[in-house]
Amino acid sequence: MLKKIECFIQPSRLEALKDALIEAGVGGMTVTDVRGFGRQRGRREDETGAPEVRFLEKNKIEIVVEEEIVDHVLDLIKNAARTGTIGAGKAFVLPVEDALRVSTSETGKRALS
Amino acid sequence: MLKKIECFIQPSRLEALKDALIEAGVGGMTVTDVRGFGRQRGRREDETGAPEVRFLEKNKIEIVVEEEIVDHVLDLIKNAARTGTIGAGKAFVLPVEDALRVSTSETGKRALS
Amino acid sequence: MLKKIECFIQPSRLEALKDALIEAGVGGMTVTDVRGFGRQRGRREDETGAPEVRFLEKNKIEIVVEEEIVDHVLDLIKNAARTGTIGAGKAFVLPVEDALRVSTSETGKRALS
Repeated sequence: MLKKIECFIQPSRLEALKDALIEAGVGGMTVTDVRGFGRQRGRREDETGAPEVRFLEKNKIEIVVEEEIVDHVLDLIKNAARTGTIGAGKAFVLPVEDALRVSTSETGKRALS
Repeated sequence: MLKKIECFIQPSRLEALKDALIEAGVGGMTVTDVRGFGRQRGRREDETGAPEVRFLEKNKIEIVVEEEIVDHVLDLIKNAARTGTIGAGKAFVLPVEDALRVSTSETGKRALS
Repeated sequence: MLKKIECFIQPSRLEALKDALIEAGVGGMTVTDVRGFGRQRGRREDETGAPEVRFLEKNKIEIVVEEEIVDHVLDLIKNAARTGTIGAGKAFVLPVEDALRVSTSETGKRALS
């Protein structure tokens, strides 16, 4: 079974996460520049009572992996993305029913390796 | 159970949707600048016979919520995103199997709250 | 049943894929400018031993279709996106549980047509 992991992190953590995923043998990843807020509502920790929800720049990372390594990849994300403060980010696991590699027509998990 | 709601709306409706989601207590959202077309093929209503499909600027909104509030959030999207014309946008509901909050290592629905 | 197809292709193939999807009657699509690498680690075929993984510009295409045409759409993607080299891209199929068209409140597959 294939799973998609989507994570939303601070751009300053992208290089560390990329390196960790490559070292773990993840076969590919996609990065999108997005903006978002989470529980911290776009506030920095040293602010209080900010009147408005602000969007902050984030990076969305998308990878598709075999089910067996999902927990390992979530651990890598946790270690690489943390910042020591709130607003470090989140990851989500979604089911994937099929995959296709365009250049070879391979499908399923063979499309990843 | 967690669900992901992805919606594609006109950028002019983003502020209204953001405000509605925050008021409803949604714990986070992500916005991406995208381009797209739907049934209207990128035409405005006052045009006919436009020879080409054109991409229009849209915003993609991503949120992950507990299953119980999906219908409520779809109602909020419907009310906040509508423009009175075709091409107002669409929303999709996808299953999510797990979630992780990086800063605390909380998983599942605890990662959202 | 509805399915989401996400594909990651070289930007030079976007027009061909758009034309193929429109001709096949696909009711809408969304394009995002992303960066990524796959098995080729961002190398071109004429390079060897590149010391670093580089991100390359890609386009992410998102469409939601009825289950019956998923295989046909994957064929279209395979034909339109291929470049004759590695790094042409990938496509993934994800389950979708519901859809909403904002302008009419139609849901499920009626939201697509």
